[in-house]
Amino acid sequence: MSAGIRRLDTVGMRAATAALVSAGTRISLVPTMGALHEGHASLIRRSRADGHATLVSVFVNPAQFGPTEDFGRYPRTHEADVELAASAGADMVWFPEVHDLYPSASVGVAGTPRLGVAGTMHVCAGPTGEVLCGASRPGFFDGVCTVVLKLFSLSRAHVAHFGEKDWQQLVLIRQMAREFHLGVVVRGEPIVREPDGLAMSSRNRYLQPEQRSTALALHRTIEFARARFAAGERSAARLEEALLGAWRAEESAAPRALRLDYLSLREPDTLMPAEQLAPATRLVLAAYLGDVRLIDNAPLGGGSTSASEGGGA
Amino acid sequence: MSAGIRRLDTVGMRAATAALVSAGTRISLVPTMGALHEGHASLIRRSRADGHATLVSVFVNPAQFGPTEDFGRYPRTHEADVELAASAGADMVWFPEVHDLYPSASVGVAGTPRLGVAGTMHVCAGPTGEVLCGASRPGFFDGVCTVVLKLFSLSRAHVAHFGEKDWQQLVLIRQMAREFHLGVVVRGEPIVREPDGLAMSSRNRYLQPEQRSTALALHRTIEFARARFAAGERSAARLEEALLGAWRAEESAAPRALRLDYLSLREPDTLMPAEQLAPATRLVLAAYLGDVRLIDNAPLGGGSTSASEGGGA
Repeated sequence: MSAGIRRLDTVGMRAATAALVSAGTRISLVPTMGALHEGHASLIRRSRADGHATLVSVFVNPAQFGPTEDFGRYPRTHEADVELAASAGADMVWFPEVHDLYPSASVGVAGTPRLGVAGTMHVCAGPTGEVLCGASRPGFFDGVCTVVLKLFSLSRAHVAHFGEKDWQQLVLIRQMAREFHLGVVVRGEPIVREPDGLAMSSRNRYLQPEQRSTALALHRTIEFARARFAAGERSAARLEEALLGAWRAEESAAPRALRLDYLSLREPDTLMPAEQLAPATRLVLAAYLGDVRLIDNAPLGGGSTSASEGGGA
Repeated sequence: MSAGIRRLDTVGMRAATAALVSAGTRISLVPTMGALHEGHASLIRRSRADGHATLVSVFVNPAQFGPTEDFGRYPRTHEADVELAASAGADMVWFPEVHDLYPSASVGVAGTPRLGVAGTMHVCAGPTGEVLCGASRPGFFDGVCTVVLKLFSLSRAHVAHFGEKDWQQLVLIRQMAREFHLGVVVRGEPIVREPDGLAMSSRNRYLQPEQRSTALALHRTIEFARARFAAGERSAARLEEALLGAWRAEESAAPRALRLDYLSLREPDTLMPAEQLAPATRLVLAAYLGDVRLIDNAPLGGGSTSASEGGGA
């Protein structure tokens, strides 16, 4: 399965990408935190289809975790990640060390990496990073933008692939590439879902069996919104009200098991609250199942959000 | 004088540097806010001596000015800048527009550029940007780092030259290049001084004749510190106390005309307060002459800080 894939540290990756650039080969980066699943595989396949040398980075980035979050228990599955990356067609898997990416602020107390970006030079994501997920996770997008800038610089990537499940992240990375003139093309790929509609996520493996079925509330809410839009609803205020009603019914059906973080209709490129609904208007939502936080999103119009979306296998 | 120099907008600069990179030519950037003087000329000559294609950028960066600062009256002397850059040997002068560098946040009220970085994605310089000049000018180094990152990206520079007069800026740009893995070599060049010792600065042209002579207090304080160090002083606390005494005498000699912002002995690379004095320990200081703010700095040991330092003409 993994014949030919190269497993690289930062020094090896730097040498490999320098040689590729010299040879005129285009490089696509697929930045991940590991625990790879079919969503990541779809990004890798897309890069291969473009004919680019495909580099998958695997790095659980301490700068995007808060002190009460799951940095310590975030799944590390390096062997399986290499296998999956190889089977999807990646050429290289890169495992940076913390000190490669954070040379002057790599450790905190007792040798553990410092969490967050406070006290370091970093990218401030600005107002678009302070809403939605950024409101629940202060500093999260500062940490994301900071590490992605470094991954771009070190990898010499021409193109980078991100999943649409992290829609706000995709918006911000595109904004960063444009604002900082990074010369990297940022591609978003559709969400890959389980057969029952749950968006694939590395954090799904935290879910207990009963949480796993409760988690379908997110996808049901998306389908409800899309059905209302298809039936002609064009008022953002009215649709949000209806969605909150539908969500309250979901919470009643799973008392104490499900808790909304946010649910909102947004302009797709700016994340400003939507006023007029359109097919591209994005429903974004986040919820807690116990202490597991899941996110999902979809446009109100366009193709289906069933399991086949974006699969491409 | 300006035979051969190319005066470029951003589109022209992008085309020119793409061609140079394709041809394997190394590019040196000299980032400036214009109002060029012999200090800038020394940076250009250094770049030419290295045999690099030399690009001078001229951009008064709104993101590094506060609302009460001199953005509006900062000198704009484009024709003279092109002449000076040409005579020092630059190949290209680049005049970016605000919207080239700040595509999504370029204007504020009434079409004037927004000052500062608030409300935009930007580089946060971190703790090293919050002391000394950063304490007096909140957000200043965030604005500096942000624009320099963009100038680096757009220009495709391999090397960038900065004057040591802005010592804290030089420390931070070096830190940014290292932390963000920008692949740009950052070179600092010695301060160029007027014959009487005043460090060259674009803001010197604001000085009234009587302020011009009062401004020599900065250089005299530096010479006083270097003499004490040469005489064997090795206590930072004692030397700072002596320097403050000398400064108070300067202020008494020019009542209401001279006001200290800061005066401090610092580690040269981290800007942490110095404990043991060494030849490389940096005296940094800033003072107001009326509403004109001047800065200066020097190591306690090493070669002279007389007018010939770094001139190289």
